[in-house]
Amino acid sequence: MKFRGPGIKAGVSNRHIHVNEEDLKTLFGKDYELTPIKDLGQPGQYAADEKVIIVGKKGAIPGVRVLGPVRPETQIEISRTDSFQLGVKPPLKDSGDLEGSASLTVVGPKGTIILGRGVIIAKRHIHMTPEEAETYKLKDKDIVKVYCEGDGQRKTIFDDVLIRVNTKYALEFHVDVDEANAAFLSNNQMVYIIEE
Amino acid sequence: MKFRGPGIKAGVSNRHIHVNEEDLKTLFGKDYELTPIKDLGQPGQYAADEKVIIVGKKGAIPGVRVLGPVRPETQIEISRTDSFQLGVKPPLKDSGDLEGSASLTVVGPKGTIILGRGVIIAKRHIHMTPEEAETYKLKDKDIVKVYCEGDGQRKTIFDDVLIRVNTKYALEFHVDVDEANAAFLSNNQMVYIIEE
Repeated sequence: MKFRGPGIKAGVSNRHIHVNEEDLKTLFGKDYELTPIKDLGQPGQYAADEKVIIVGKKGAIPGVRVLGPVRPETQIEISRTDSFQLGVKPPLKDSGDLEGSASLTVVGPKGTIILGRGVIIAKRHIHMTPEEAETYKLKDKDIVKVYCEGDGQRKTIFDDVLIRVNTKYALEFHVDVDEANAAFLSNNQMVYIIEE
Repeated sequence: MKFRGPGIKAGVSNRHIHVNEEDLKTLFGKDYELTPIKDLGQPGQYAADEKVIIVGKKGAIPGVRVLGPVRPETQIEISRTDSFQLGVKPPLKDSGDLEGSASLTVVGPKGTIILGRGVIIAKRHIHMTPEEAETYKLKDKDIVKVYCEGDGQRKTIFDDVLIRVNTKYALEFHVDVDEANAAFLSNNQMVYIIEE
């Protein structure tokens, strides 16, 4: 197996919600502002102290972390495991592409929203800058295979990994909890793009 | 990518418990017998109607299916996702190899057991007969890579797949729910051993 370019850090995304201004107000109250508690791998993005309950027709999941800053459209990213528990069928999508996405009810301390769309399972992907894309000889929207050693017990090659290129990105391989657990992969472990 | 031999059906194992005679009595009552409701892929094995609650120091999971028939030693197989929810650290093991396995409390309708050992995350594996092993040119305890197309959206190659050969087995690739969901793989979909 031959690798393309240097290793890339893994970032494991647990279920989370990005909110727009209006939904932030409904869930947490008028003039409410998010409380950043931890910077995320991507510049400017943070985990907020705020949490919500997400509810589908088969179940509810409490303690779902809000990520900031606020976005133009509210978006919920869950794993397939979560989707079965909630009783919802979200499509596998790139973050931000909400066409055909699913619906859930979101309960905050000050109010409830019935989110008509915005629920997705995120497509596994690698963030990189245009300079990094040049190093890897890749371009935005390319699809690659990624080798994950993890802790060495459940080595896995993930195909269908989307390359996302933007000047605002930092180099990082994003998977959800199902994918991380299938590979015994943890945050900040290195993964490698396979040269074919 | 070249494949070795014909495709193999996938079987996805949700969390479950195998019980011994003594624990069956404690959990469900004296002279209790399991009620088979569905045959499993492996000959003689079945899902029982009975369910228990498993409890760790961080949480509990209700509705955990009992599989029959009874075995010499009680064994609980959970996913890594489950392990975080329960607050337990089971090792990755072959079914039946319980050396160093973890502990959980099990609650049934008639009693509770504090299981000192027996909790594992099952190593992904393929069951086959000696005749099938000959076809695939493999032997017991070999490790192979398996290609999973799944529904085509999250194609995945699982390394560290254990070959298990026994006259009593039926040809089947076993993964847990984390692994199935990481690959969008469902019961009875075909997977392929990679020829290296």
